[in-house]
Amino acid sequence: MTALTALALNCTLKPSPADSSTDLLLSQVMTELGTHDVTGTTVRVVDFDVRPGVETDMGDGDEWPKIRELVLAADIVVIGTPIWMGHMSSIAQRVLERLDAELSETDEQGRPILFDKVAAVAVVGNEDGAHHATAELYQGLVDVGFTVAAQAATYWNGEAMQTVDYRELDETPEAVANATEILARTSAHLARALRAQPYPAAD
Amino acid sequence: MTALTALALNCTLKPSPADSSTDLLLSQVMTELGTHDVTGTTVRVVDFDVRPGVETDMGDGDEWPKIRELVLAADIVVIGTPIWMGHMSSIAQRVLERLDAELSETDEQGRPILFDKVAAVAVVGNEDGAHHATAELYQGLVDVGFTVAAQAATYWNGEAMQTVDYRELDETPEAVANATEILARTSAHLARALRAQPYPAAD
Amino acid sequence: MTALTALALNCTLKPSPADSSTDLLLSQVMTELGTHDVTGTTVRVVDFDVRPGVETDMGDGDEWPKIRELVLAADIVVIGTPIWMGHMSSIAQRVLERLDAELSETDEQGRPILFDKVAAVAVVGNEDGAHHATAELYQGLVDVGFTVAAQAATYWNGEAMQTVDYRELDETPEAVANATEILARTSAHLARALRAQPYPAAD
Amino acid sequence: MTALTALALNCTLKPSPADSSTDLLLSQVMTELGTHDVTGTTVRVVDFDVRPGVETDMGDGDEWPKIRELVLAADIVVIGTPIWMGHMSSIAQRVLERLDAELSETDEQGRPILFDKVAAVAVVGNEDGAHHATAELYQGLVDVGFTVAAQAATYWNGEAMQTVDYRELDETPEAVANATEILARTSAHLARALRAQPYPAAD
Repeated sequence: MTALTALALNCTLKPSPADSSTDLLLSQVMTELGTHDVTGTTVRVVDFDVRPGVETDMGDGDEWPKIRELVLAADIVVIGTPIWMGHMSSIAQRVLERLDAELSETDEQGRPILFDKVAAVAVVGNEDGAHHATAELYQGLVDVGFTVAAQAATYWNGEAMQTVDYRELDETPEAVANATEILARTSAHLARALRAQPYPAAD
Repeated sequence: MTALTALALNCTLKPSPADSSTDLLLSQVMTELGTHDVTGTTVRVVDFDVRPGVETDMGDGDEWPKIRELVLAADIVVIGTPIWMGHMSSIAQRVLERLDAELSETDEQGRPILFDKVAAVAVVGNEDGAHHATAELYQGLVDVGFTVAAQAATYWNGEAMQTVDYRELDETPEAVANATEILARTSAHLARALRAQPYPAAD
Repeated sequence: MTALTALALNCTLKPSPADSSTDLLLSQVMTELGTHDVTGTTVRVVDFDVRPGVETDMGDGDEWPKIRELVLAADIVVIGTPIWMGHMSSIAQRVLERLDAELSETDEQGRPILFDKVAAVAVVGNEDGAHHATAELYQGLVDVGFTVAAQAATYWNGEAMQTVDYRELDETPEAVANATEILARTSAHLARALRAQPYPAAD
Repeated sequence: MTALTALALNCTLKPSPADSSTDLLLSQVMTELGTHDVTGTTVRVVDFDVRPGVETDMGDGDEWPKIRELVLAADIVVIGTPIWMGHMSSIAQRVLERLDAELSETDEQGRPILFDKVAAVAVVGNEDGAHHATAELYQGLVDVGFTVAAQAATYWNGEAMQTVDYRELDETPEAVANATEILARTSAHLARALRAQPYPAAD
């Protein structure tokens, strides 16, 4: 069996090279996935001109098709998002909107094109919102054909209304590291299981 | 003008006399409302046999009608909820379900019976979920006829995956006290404005 | 391999024997699961005295332990919920609250006790709310250890603000039947894959 | 008293001059507001280069400041959004992210700069999601200082998984027209009441 691959989509609002807490958490996820023989790539979505719309290619310089190719090539897709106003970022919602187009794409067996791929979630914010962002992402990703492993989310946020960022912490809290470890372990296992036994097509 | 009154509905899962962090935050809200000449009552909903359903009275020992009378008599209703699984409690959702019945109730002018009443929200959890619980509550309460003042929510939750309760803190964080102060100031003002100038009926 | 089993939890607000649209949709899910050699049981949760709280047994006549036994014995758990105020029902949230206790339960390998079980979702309402209820349920269920298959939700709701119930339709809309078929196909496949290849424990 | 003004922000994904169902519903809202002597302007946000970020001006050609001026000048702000994947659009979330900056802006009395402004919501989708988009918008808008009138949302969506658009309907459903009428009546009244009696500053 060829090695599994993971794609992390960083949905921060800040273009490179600005520091990103989401980037830090995603790098920890990718490191953990590495211990399960998953090799990965991380893309900062805001660095690309991803047009609003719900087609696979909105034309006219739209750079989503570059990211879409990476999505289609990956076994595991990890969406990393900051929290703004208690919600996932506008970039994360933009990614879901663009993935919506895949609902009409099928493979040679007539199955949705994203079947057998596993999705996981990483959320960071100063305070409050990770469970909700996770809920929105799971639902959107499962709707278009991803599968979600047990406890496939890791997150950090501080106390209510505080302002320290994840990347400013002296060390990674043990509970976060533990959640990241579980996400990687279950998602890698599930992707491998689906590689070995893909979903059947409709009769 | 007669004094304004507030009703706080504590939607904790724990029957009296168990300690409740939600109760603590609601008592702080009621104290702040007191400084604006609003007198209040707090009810722990789980102490009543509030039946599942969407009628004003489900019969057969249903105790919602007792709470409903207090709702109809109040100028301000504050919903206090703990966070479980990142969501408002099942008791809070039960309250919304029972308030749903008011959509078919109108006053002598044909206006929805809850018009001119103001709703506010208080949320506490160990970690993560306050904005989402607030969103769900605002929407449900506005749908049935309540009005929501500027910044009408106060909340506390700790760092991701930590376990200390609000009532165990040595002191109330200044940011929480500040949010509570604003909630009381804007909600009392708005309730007074709507008392003086009620919503017009349809032509 | 012994046959797979499914448990459907009907989270309607209406005690038996009242007609339930959720019951109808769940029965369609169970029939489809049957075509994949999954045998099932449906429980109407509101018929049991499920106490508020977050322990596996709240004592004093709490009937959740009876339902919990069925959950622990099932390979697939389907949560069926009506929509009230745009949200899943208070009964569905109650189920999530009670499942929260499983976060501290582990099996003989030290894995969360719900690992290797698959969850799916069925939502019905007169109008509007299925995606949101699905999001809340996926997140809560994955948090406690369930795995979610591709497109593991089926739902129906009518046009905005209309009042016909699912069980009053002349026939099942084709799109709903199709969603139900997919849910059963992917969930049965995934449960079988996880039976064959359970999640590994932490090193 | 000078006339009240309303600003409608159309958060469709489609740049002008493409037809927009959101635009149709917003135009109906604006017409109804007109019957209450509120004059209005509608802006299609996607026609402007609104940069990701949470500052009032992200610089470098950012066109949010043009829209921000209109927000600050309006008494009533109506957010209109389509539903994608069951959520408000990425453009609507972008608007909330940009409004987040106003949390640090105060007027000459030290009050949040958005105090005394009223927000309302209009949501359209093929199917399912209006209540949830409404919840997210109410919470975000109230957090930054807007006030929400009773029943301040209007919406349309069709039956589950159907594909007809609002702008393709032969006529406006009566329930939608009624919701739009109420939104306008309560929001105009509340904006007028807050113009006459602004929120007090902190002591």
